[in-house]
Amino acid sequence: MRKIAEPTIRRLSLYLRFLEEFEGRGTLTVSSEELAHRGATTAAQVRKDLSLFGSFGKRGLGYPVPQLAARLRDILGLERDYGVAVIGAGKVGRALAQYGGFASRGFRVRWVYDAHPAKVGMAWNGLRVRDVRLMRDDFPGGAPDIAIVATPADAAQDVADQLVGLGVKAILNFAPVHLAVPHDVTVKNVNMAIELEALSYALRHR
Amino acid sequence: MRKIAEPTIRRLSLYLRFLEEFEGRGTLTVSSEELAHRGATTAAQVRKDLSLFGSFGKRGLGYPVPQLAARLRDILGLERDYGVAVIGAGKVGRALAQYGGFASRGFRVRWVYDAHPAKVGMAWNGLRVRDVRLMRDDFPGGAPDIAIVATPADAAQDVADQLVGLGVKAILNFAPVHLAVPHDVTVKNVNMAIELEALSYALRHR
Repeated sequence: MRKIAEPTIRRLSLYLRFLEEFEGRGTLTVSSEELAHRGATTAAQVRKDLSLFGSFGKRGLGYPVPQLAARLRDILGLERDYGVAVIGAGKVGRALAQYGGFASRGFRVRWVYDAHPAKVGMAWNGLRVRDVRLMRDDFPGGAPDIAIVATPADAAQDVADQLVGLGVKAILNFAPVHLAVPHDVTVKNVNMAIELEALSYALRHR
Repeated sequence: MRKIAEPTIRRLSLYLRFLEEFEGRGTLTVSSEELAHRGATTAAQVRKDLSLFGSFGKRGLGYPVPQLAARLRDILGLERDYGVAVIGAGKVGRALAQYGGFASRGFRVRWVYDAHPAKVGMAWNGLRVRDVRLMRDDFPGGAPDIAIVATPADAAQDVADQLVGLGVKAILNFAPVHLAVPHDVTVKNVNMAIELEALSYALRHR
Protein backbone atom coordinates (compact mmCIF):
# COMPACT_ATOMS: atom_id res chain seq x y z
CA MET A 1 0.00 0.00 0.00
CA ARG A 2 1.32 3.42 -0.84
CA LYS A 3 2.11 5.88 1.90
CA ILE A 4 -0.91 7.83 3.08
CA ALA A 5 -0.57 11.54 3.79
CA GLU A 6 -0.93 12.71 7.36
CA PRO A 7 -4.19 14.69 6.92
CA THR A 8 -5.77 11.58 5.37
CA ILE A 9 -4.68 9.45 8.33
CA ARG A 10 -6.32 11.96 10.66
CA ARG A 11 -9.55 11.85 8.70
CA LEU A 12 -9.46 8.03 8.80
CA SER A 13 -9.16 8.21 12.62
CA LEU A 14 -12.20 10.47 12.71
CA TYR A 15 -14.23 8.27 10.33
CA LEU A 16 -13.40 5.27 12.52
CA ARG A 17 -14.70 7.11 15.57
CA PHE A 18 -18.02 7.83 13.85
CA LEU A 19 -18.25 4.28 12.50
CA GLU A 20 -17.76 2.90 16.00
CA GLU A 21 -20.58 5.10 17.26
CA PHE A 22 -22.80 3.75 14.47
CA GLU A 23 -21.66 0.21 15.32
CA GLY A 24 -22.63 0.82 18.95
CA ARG A 25 -26.13 1.78 17.83
CA GLY A 26 -26.43 -1.24 15.54
CA THR A 27 -26.44 0.80 12.31
CA LEU A 28 -25.35 -1.45 9.44
CA THR A 29 -24.66 0.99 6.62
CA VAL A 30 -23.58 4.62 6.38
CA SER A 31 -23.40 6.97 3.42
CA SER A 32 -20.41 9.08 2.44
CA GLU A 33 -22.66 12.10 3.06
CA GLU A 34 -23.21 11.11 6.70
CA LEU A 35 -19.50 10.55 7.29
CA ALA A 36 -18.73 13.86 5.55
CA HIS A 37 -21.23 15.75 7.67
CA ARG A 38 -19.77 14.38 10.91
CA GLY A 39 -16.19 14.94 9.82
CA ALA A 40 -16.74 18.44 8.42
CA THR A 41 -15.55 17.42 4.99
CA THR A 42 -17.23 16.63 1.66
CA ALA A 43 -18.78 13.36 0.50
CA ALA A 44 -16.36 13.40 -2.44
CA GLN A 45 -13.41 13.60 0.00
CA VAL A 46 -14.79 10.67 2.03
CA ARG A 47 -15.19 8.56 -1.11
CA LYS A 48 -11.69 9.49 -2.24
CA ASP A 49 -10.17 8.69 1.17
CA LEU A 50 -11.92 5.33 1.40
CA SER A 51 -11.24 4.36 -2.21
CA LEU A 52 -7.56 4.16 -1.26
CA PHE A 53 -8.34 0.80 0.33
CA GLY A 54 -10.32 -0.80 -2.44
CA SER A 55 -13.96 -0.71 -3.29
CA PHE A 56 -16.16 -0.57 -0.24
CA GLY A 57 -19.31 1.41 -0.75
CA LYS A 58 -22.07 0.26 -3.04
CA ARG A 59 -23.71 3.06 -4.96
CA GLY A 60 -27.02 3.82 -3.28
CA LEU A 61 -26.37 1.41 -0.42
CA GLY A 62 -23.58 3.14 1.46
CA TYR A 63 -20.66 1.61 3.31
CA PRO A 64 -21.05 -1.52 5.46
CA VAL A 65 -20.30 -0.20 8.95
CA PRO A 66 -18.66 -3.20 10.70
CA GLN A 67 -16.50 -4.15 7.71
CA LEU A 68 -15.32 -0.60 7.07
CA ALA A 69 -14.56 -0.10 10.78
CA ALA A 70 -12.52 -3.32 10.86
CA ARG A 71 -10.62 -2.27 7.72
CA LEU A 72 -9.81 1.15 9.18
CA ARG A 73 -8.66 -0.42 12.47
CA ASP A 74 -6.39 -2.67 10.43
CA ILE A 75 -4.99 0.20 8.36
CA LEU A 76 -4.41 2.33 11.44
CA GLY A 77 -2.65 -0.53 13.21
CA LEU A 78 -5.30 -0.74 15.91
CA GLU A 79 -5.88 -4.50 15.74
CA ARG A 80 -3.11 -5.06 18.27
CA ASP A 81 -2.09 -3.68 21.67
CA TYR A 82 0.75 -1.25 22.21
CA GLY A 83 2.79 -1.00 25.37
CA VAL A 84 3.15 2.67 26.30
CA ALA A 85 5.68 4.24 28.66
CA VAL A 86 4.97 7.70 30.09
CA ILE A 87 8.06 9.72 31.04
CA GLY A 88 7.26 12.51 33.46
CA ALA A 89 4.81 12.02 36.31
CA GLY A 90 3.54 15.58 36.55
CA LYS A 91 -0.10 16.58 36.03
CA VAL A 92 -0.04 15.87 32.30
CA GLY A 93 1.69 12.51 32.75
CA ARG A 94 -0.71 11.56 35.47
CA ALA A 95 -3.81 12.47 33.43
CA LEU A 96 -2.44 10.44 30.51
CA ALA A 97 -1.54 7.42 32.65
CA GLN A 98 -5.01 7.36 34.17
CA TYR A 99 -6.98 8.13 31.04
CA GLY A 100 -9.13 5.09 30.25
CA GLY A 101 -9.80 6.07 26.64
CA PHE A 102 -6.32 5.01 25.51
CA ALA A 103 -6.53 1.49 26.91
CA SER A 104 -9.89 0.96 25.20
CA ARG A 105 -8.13 1.52 21.85
CA GLY A 106 -5.20 -0.75 22.67
CA PHE A 107 -2.73 1.84 23.97
CA ARG A 108 -1.78 0.40 27.35
CA VAL A 109 0.26 2.55 29.70
CA ARG A 110 2.44 -0.03 31.44
CA TRP A 111 5.27 2.13 32.74
CA VAL A 112 5.54 5.61 34.26
CA TYR A 113 8.90 7.22 35.01
CA ASP A 114 10.01 10.36 36.75
CA ALA A 115 13.33 11.78 37.87
CA HIS A 116 12.02 13.40 41.04
CA PRO A 117 12.41 11.40 44.30
CA ALA A 118 9.11 12.78 45.62
CA LYS A 119 7.26 11.23 42.67
CA VAL A 120 9.10 7.92 42.37
CA GLY A 121 7.13 5.23 44.18
CA MET A 122 3.71 6.86 43.88
CA ALA A 123 1.03 4.43 42.69
CA TRP A 124 -1.78 5.35 40.27
CA ASN A 125 -4.38 2.71 39.51
CA GLY A 126 -1.85 0.07 40.48
CA LEU A 127 0.87 1.57 38.28
CA ARG A 128 3.95 2.57 40.26
CA VAL A 129 6.09 5.54 39.22
CA ARG A 130 9.64 4.31 38.65
CA ASP A 131 12.97 6.12 38.70
CA VAL A 132 13.82 7.20 35.15
CA ARG A 133 17.40 6.12 35.79
CA LEU A 134 16.15 2.52 35.89
CA MET A 135 14.49 2.77 32.50
CA ARG A 136 17.39 1.21 30.62
CA ASP A 137 17.39 -1.86 32.84
CA ASP A 138 13.62 -2.30 32.54
CA PHE A 139 13.82 -3.14 28.86
CA PRO A 140 16.58 -5.68 28.37
CA GLY A 141 14.74 -7.45 25.57
CA GLY A 142 13.01 -4.63 23.73
CA ALA A 143 11.64 -1.14 24.01
CA PRO A 144 8.10 0.07 24.74
CA ASP A 145 6.15 0.42 21.50
CA ILE A 146 5.31 4.04 22.20
CA ALA A 147 6.78 6.53 24.65
CA ILE A 148 5.00 9.66 25.83
CA VAL A 149 7.35 12.48 26.81
CA ALA A 150 5.63 14.64 29.44
CA THR A 151 8.73 16.12 31.08
CA PRO A 152 9.69 19.78 31.51
CA ALA A 153 11.06 21.31 28.30
CA ASP A 154 14.68 21.24 29.39
CA ALA A 155 14.67 17.50 30.11
CA ALA A 156 12.81 16.37 27.01
CA GLN A 157 15.67 16.01 24.51
CA ASP A 158 17.76 14.02 26.96
CA VAL A 159 14.82 11.70 27.63
CA ALA A 160 14.19 11.37 23.88
CA ASP A 161 17.84 10.40 23.36
CA GLN A 162 17.51 7.68 26.00
CA LEU A 163 14.30 6.40 24.42
CA VAL A 164 15.91 6.26 20.99
CA GLY A 165 18.82 4.41 22.55
CA LEU A 166 16.38 1.84 23.92
CA GLY A 167 14.96 1.32 20.45
CA VAL A 168 11.70 3.28 20.78
CA LYS A 169 10.34 4.11 17.30
CA ALA A 170 7.27 6.19 18.17
CA ILE A 171 7.13 9.19 20.53
CA LEU A 172 4.21 11.39 21.54
CA ASN A 173 5.76 14.63 22.77
CA PHE A 174 3.98 16.95 25.19
CA ALA A 175 7.06 19.01 26.05
CA PRO A 176 7.09 22.42 24.34
CA VAL A 177 10.27 21.74 22.38
CA HIS A 178 11.20 20.20 19.09
CA LEU A 179 12.74 16.74 19.61
CA ALA A 180 15.59 15.78 17.32
CA VAL A 181 15.41 12.05 16.50
CA PRO A 182 16.74 9.73 13.77
CA HIS A 183 14.70 9.32 10.58
CA ASP A 184 13.26 5.95 11.55
CA VAL A 185 11.63 7.38 14.69
CA THR A 186 8.22 9.07 14.39
CA VAL A 187 7.41 11.97 16.71
CA LYS A 188 3.97 13.55 17.08
CA ASN A 189 3.63 16.70 19.11
CA VAL A 190 0.78 17.76 21.35
CA ASN A 191 1.37 21.32 22.37
CA MET A 192 -1.51 22.91 24.19
CA ALA A 193 0.34 26.18 24.74
CA ILE A 194 0.92 26.58 21.00
CA GLU A 195 -2.77 25.89 20.31
CA LEU A 196 -3.69 28.53 22.90
CA GLU A 197 -1.31 31.00 21.26
CA ALA A 198 -2.90 30.32 17.88
CA LEU A 199 -6.20 31.27 19.56
CA SER A 200 -4.80 34.43 21.10
CA TYR A 201 -3.39 35.32 17.69
CA ALA A 202 -6.87 34.84 16.21
CA LEU A 203 -8.45 36.99 18.94
CA ARG A 204 -5.79 39.67 18.54
CA HIS A 205 -6.29 39.90 14.75
CA ARG A 206 -10.04 39.54 14.48
CA MET B 1 -0.70 43.37 8.71
CA ARG B 2 -1.60 40.62 6.32
CA LYS B 3 -2.93 37.33 7.60
CA ILE B 4 -0.22 34.92 8.68
CA ALA B 5 -0.55 31.25 7.80
CA GLU B 6 -1.08 28.80 10.61
CA PRO B 7 2.28 26.95 10.30
CA THR B 8 4.05 30.32 10.51
CA ILE B 9 2.13 31.21 13.68
CA ARG B 10 3.23 27.91 15.21
CA ARG B 11 6.85 28.60 14.35
CA LEU B 12 6.56 32.08 15.87
CA SER B 13 5.29 30.47 19.10
CA LEU B 14 8.31 28.17 19.11
CA TYR B 15 10.77 31.00 18.37
CA LEU B 16 9.25 32.97 21.23
CA ARG B 17 9.80 30.04 23.57
CA PHE B 18 13.49 29.86 22.64
CA LEU B 19 13.89 33.62 22.86
CA GLU B 20 12.44 33.60 26.36
CA GLU B 21 14.94 30.93 27.35
CA PHE B 22 17.73 33.11 25.97
CA GLU B 23 16.25 36.11 27.80
CA GLY B 24 16.29 34.11 31.02
CA ARG B 25 19.99 33.46 30.57
CA GLY B 26 20.70 37.10 29.78
CA THR B 27 21.66 36.44 26.14
CA LEU B 28 21.26 39.68 24.17
CA THR B 29 21.43 38.55 20.56
CA VAL B 30 20.63 35.36 18.68
CA SER B 31 21.35 34.33 15.10
CA SER B 32 18.81 32.94 12.65
CA GLU B 33 20.97 29.77 12.63
CA GLU B 34 20.51 29.27 16.37
CA LEU B 35 16.74 29.77 16.15
CA ALA B 36 16.62 27.43 13.15
CA HIS B 37 18.57 24.73 14.95
CA ARG B 38 16.27 24.83 17.98
CA GLY B 39 13.13 24.94 15.86
CA ALA B 40 14.20 22.23 13.40
CA THR B 41 13.89 24.55 10.46
CA THR B 42 16.32 26.46 8.24
CA ALA B 43 17.95 29.81 8.87
CA ALA B 44 16.37 31.03 5.61
CA GLN B 45 12.92 30.10 6.95
CA VAL B 46 13.59 31.92 10.22
CA ARG B 47 14.67 35.05 8.36
CA LYS B 48 11.62 34.83 6.08
CA ASP B 49 9.25 34.35 9.04
CA LEU B 50 10.71 37.26 10.99
CA SER B 51 10.94 39.57 7.98
CA LEU B 52 7.12 39.61 7.97
CA PHE B 53 7.32 42.05 10.86
CA GLY B 54 9.86 44.48 9.54
CA SER B 55 13.60 44.50 9.66
CA PHE B 56 14.95 43.09 12.87
CA GLY B 57 18.19 41.26 12.49
CA LYS B 58 21.40 43.03 11.60
CA ARG B 59 23.62 41.08 9.26
CA GLY B 60 26.42 39.59 11.31
CA LEU B 61 24.93 40.76 14.60
CA GLY B 62 21.83 38.60 14.87
CA TYR B 63 18.46 39.47 16.37
CA PRO B 64 18.13 41.51 19.57
CA VAL B 65 16.56 39.00 21.96
CA PRO B 66 14.37 41.18 24.25
CA GLN B 67 13.02 43.33 21.40
CA LEU B 68 12.23 40.37 19.17
CA ALA B 69 10.55 38.53 22.06
CA ALA B 70 8.41 41.58 22.84
CA ARG B 71 7.44 41.92 19.17
CA LEU B 72 6.45 38.26 18.94
CA ARG B 73 4.42 38.51 22.16
CA ASP B 74 2.64 41.50 20.64
CA ILE B 75 1.95 39.71 17.33
CA LEU B 76 0.70 36.60 19.09
CA GLY B 77 -1.59 38.67 21.30
CA LEU B 78 0.26 37.70 24.48
CA GLU B 79 0.67 41.19 25.91
CA ARG B 80 -2.68 40.90 27.67
CA ASP B 81 -4.45 38.38 29.88
CA TYR B 82 -7.20 36.07 28.70
CA GLY B 83 -9.98 34.74 30.91
CA VAL B 84 -10.36 31.03 30.23
CA ALA B 85 -13.33 28.79 31.08
CA VAL B 86 -12.83 25.02 31.20
CA ILE B 87 -15.96 22.97 30.50
CA GLY B 88 -15.65 19.42 31.78
CA ALA B 89 -14.02 18.66 35.12
CA GLY B 90 -12.68 15.21 34.27
CA LYS B 91 -8.99 14.31 34.36
CA VAL B 92 -8.14 16.37 31.29
CA GLY B 93 -10.10 19.39 32.55
CA ARG B 94 -8.48 19.11 35.94
CA ALA B 95 -4.96 18.88 34.55
CA LEU B 96 -5.65 21.95 32.40
CA ALA B 97 -7.19 23.95 35.23
CA GLN B 98 -4.23 23.26 37.49
CA TYR B 99 -1.48 23.66 34.92
CA GLY B 100 0.63 26.64 35.94
CA GLY B 101 2.22 27.09 32.51
CA PHE B 102 -0.90 28.67 31.03
CA ALA B 103 -1.23 31.36 33.69
CA SER B 104 2.40 32.35 33.22
CA ARG B 105 1.59 33.19 29.58
CA GLY B 106 -1.56 35.12 30.44
CA PHE B 107 -4.13 32.37 29.97
CA ARG B 108 -5.98 32.45 33.28
CA VAL B 109 -8.44 29.68 34.03
CA ARG B 110 -11.11 31.50 36.00
CA TRP B 111 -14.07 29.16 35.61
CA VAL B 112 -14.54 25.39 35.57
CA TYR B 113 -17.90 23.79 34.77
CA ASP B 114 -19.26 20.29 34.84
CA ALA B 115 -22.68 18.72 34.44
CA HIS B 116 -22.12 15.94 36.97
CA PRO B 117 -23.43 16.58 40.53
CA ALA B 118 -20.49 14.62 42.01
CA LYS B 119 -18.04 17.08 40.45
CA VAL B 120 -19.90 20.34 40.98
CA GLY B 121 -18.60 22.02 44.13
CA MET B 122 -15.13 20.47 44.10
CA ALA B 123 -12.36 23.02 44.65
CA TRP B 124 -8.99 22.94 42.87
CA ASN B 125 -6.41 25.53 43.87
CA GLY B 126 -9.24 27.73 45.09
CA LEU B 127 -11.23 27.34 41.87
CA ARG B 128 -14.66 25.81 42.47
CA VAL B 129 -16.32 23.59 39.86
CA ARG B 130 -19.67 25.13 38.93
CA ASP B 131 -22.79 23.60 37.45
CA VAL B 132 -22.67 24.01 33.66
CA ARG B 133 -26.36 24.95 33.73
CA LEU B 134 -25.35 28.17 35.52
CA MET B 135 -22.89 29.14 32.83
CA ARG B 136 -25.27 31.44 31.02
CA ASP B 137 -25.99 33.42 34.17
CA ASP B 138 -22.29 33.76 35.02
CA PHE B 139 -21.59 35.96 32.02
CA PRO B 140 -24.26 38.62 31.88
CA GLY B 141 -21.88 41.23 30.52
CA GLY B 142 -19.60 39.26 28.25
CA ALA B 143 -18.18 35.84 27.51
CA PRO B 144 -14.88 34.27 28.59
CA ASP B 145 -12.15 35.08 26.06
CA ILE B 146 -11.34 31.43 25.51
CA ALA B 147 -13.26 28.27 26.37
CA ILE B 148 -11.67 24.84 26.67
CA VAL B 149 -14.05 21.99 25.86
CA ALA B 150 -12.96 18.90 27.80
CA THR B 151 -16.28 17.07 27.91
CA PRO B 152 -17.14 13.58 26.64
CA ALA B 153 -17.56 13.45 22.87
CA ASP B 154 -21.35 13.30 22.92
CA ALA B 155 -21.72 16.47 25.02
CA ALA B 156 -19.19 18.61 23.15
CA GLN B 157 -21.32 20.05 20.35
CA ASP B 158 -24.07 21.04 22.76
CA VAL B 159 -21.51 22.79 24.99
CA ALA B 160 -19.97 24.49 21.95
CA ASP B 161 -23.42 25.78 20.92
CA GLN B 162 -23.90 27.25 24.40
CA LEU B 163 -20.47 28.87 24.30
CA VAL B 164 -21.15 30.39 20.90
CA GLY B 165 -24.47 31.67 22.27
CA LEU B 166 -22.58 33.38 25.09
CA GLY B 167 -20.36 35.11 22.55
CA VAL B 168 -17.19 33.01 22.93
CA LYS B 169 -14.94 33.50 19.88
CA ALA B 170 -12.09 31.08 20.63
CA ILE B 171 -12.42 27.42 21.60
CA LEU B 172 -9.75 24.85 22.38
CA ASN B 173 -11.39 21.47 21.84
CA PHE B 174 -10.15 18.30 23.56
CA ALA B 175 -13.25 16.24 22.75
CA PRO B 176 -12.66 13.75 19.91
CA VAL B 177 -15.28 15.29 17.63
CA HIS B 178 -15.42 18.01 15.06
CA LEU B 179 -17.20 21.09 16.45
CA ALA B 180 -19.44 23.00 14.07
CA VAL B 181 -19.24 26.75 14.82
CA PRO B 182 -19.95 30.00 12.96
CA HIS B 183 -17.19 31.48 10.79
CA ASP B 184 -16.21 34.16 13.31
CA VAL B 185 -15.36 31.55 15.96
CA THR B 186 -11.91 29.94 15.93
CA VAL B 187 -11.57 26.34 17.07
CA LYS B 188 -8.27 24.56 17.67
CA ASN B 189 -8.30 20.85 18.35
CA VAL B 190 -6.06 18.87 20.65
CA ASN B 191 -6.70 15.22 20.04
CA MET B 192 -4.29 12.91 21.78
CA ALA B 193 -6.06 9.79 20.53
CA ILE B 194 -5.63 10.88 16.92
CA GLU B 195 -1.94 11.57 17.51
CA LEU B 196 -1.56 8.12 19.03
CA GLU B 197 -3.31 6.57 16.03
CA ALA B 198 -0.95 8.42 13.70
CA LEU B 199 1.85 6.74 15.66
CA SER B 200 0.26 3.30 15.48
CA TYR B 201 -0.18 3.85 11.73
CA ALA B 202 3.54 4.68 11.49
CA LEU B 203 4.47 1.57 13.49
CA ARG B 204 2.15 -0.60 11.41
CA HIS B 205 3.61 0.60 8.10
CA ARG B 206 7.29 0.83 8.94
